[in-house]
Amino acid sequence: MPSRYCTARRPALSKYKLASTVGAPHSPACLPAREEKATYCLSWRTMDMEKVNAMDFGEFVEVFGNVIERCPLVAAAVWSQRPFSDREDLERHFFAFIDSLPQSGREGILRCHPDLAGRELQRGALTAESQREQSGAGLTRLGPEERRRLLELNARYRARFGFPFVLAARLSHREAVPAELARRLQRQPAQELRTALDEVKKIAGLRLADLLGADPARL
Amino acid sequence: MPSRYCTARRPALSKYKLASTVGAPHSPACLPAREEKATYCLSWRTMDMEKVNAMDFGEFVEVFGNVIERCPLVAAAVWSQRPFSDREDLERHFFAFIDSLPQSGREGILRCHPDLAGRELQRGALTAESQREQSGAGLTRLGPEERRRLLELNARYRARFGFPFVLAARLSHREAVPAELARRLQRQPAQELRTALDEVKKIAGLRLADLLGADPARL
Repeated sequence: MPSRYCTARRPALSKYKLASTVGAPHSPACLPAREEKATYCLSWRTMDMEKVNAMDFGEFVEVFGNVIERCPLVAAAVWSQRPFSDREDLERHFFAFIDSLPQSGREGILRCHPDLAGRELQRGALTAESQREQSGAGLTRLGPEERRRLLELNARYRARFGFPFVLAARLSHREAVPAELARRLQRQPAQELRTALDEVKKIAGLRLADLLGADPARL
Repeated sequence: MPSRYCTARRPALSKYKLASTVGAPHSPACLPAREEKATYCLSWRTMDMEKVNAMDFGEFVEVFGNVIERCPLVAAAVWSQRPFSDREDLERHFFAFIDSLPQSGREGILRCHPDLAGRELQRGALTAESQREQSGAGLTRLGPEERRRLLELNARYRARFGFPFVLAARLSHREAVPAELARRLQRQPAQELRTALDEVKKIAGLRLADLLGADPARL
């Protein structure tokens, strides 16, 4: 699925550091021309996986610690599985670790996520990645009525399922979010747990692509 | 084992908040007299477990999210197991979740811990709990030669085992740490993984006791 975000030029790996401040959302305008991009991404991807495989666990957790929102434990566990052949291989190990957790652990991963347009956003307490994603989906610019509606739906969802509503905001938009939330609120708990974890994996895939400079057209 | 720390009056539960700033280490001087403490702690413990069992998952993760250092996922998973009968029961669920993880996950928990007297301490980037524990053990007041020796031992330990040296600093002291590190450096990896996780559990037990106002004489 095409991404609306530029991922090609993010220099994350040169800094070995999780962003601690909130950056502007990426824009398609910063994508290089197609031919230039193809060469550029190929060589960069190769170099990146060499760098990734050479990282000690401290560096690895600093770079990949928030691929799963507020769960550096997952990256710290995945490091055991190096070397990784490419981004997809690294991604598979993140997903396999999530799937290996008992149900309480998979629910626990969801419970480390913030609400969309919720309290953490209001308090400025989102992680940089989450702030960028919610901002990109327009969730930082809701009117009072939209915010009230989402607040109420989020509360009902949390009360029903025991975890927050998780959605890959970068693949959605503020106008679509309340309807999707209302739709998922009707589902059975076991089915909804699977769906919510699929969203966690979509978010993780996009964050890994950001960090490793993947070609957005291939996502 | 008696604790050198006052845990009886910490008002953590009234704030539903993980400390974000570093407080002074607790001191035995703030312990109430024995008789007063006994009554006080008993009623407080009872009340606390009622409060704990009534928490939604957001509150629970805010309060207990750093019982396992930088692994809020563990508290977020443990919330599924409520109600808890008492502190020991809550502690058992934390430990059971750790034990349920695959080896990479148990190693991952260790990799979320900082070195003792290491880079995070120098940068002021420790969690409040870890800062208090390392400070209480005297690790914030090392001389240059002591720091150099510990830095070197930590690096050898990380290279040998693939996780940092973890020790319940509150049960140790700066003069004992290098010898203990050098001793554990000689052990076999499987044995050392078990020992390091036992230390994680000691740290967690002390942090839970802080949060729930347990009688330090019973620890």
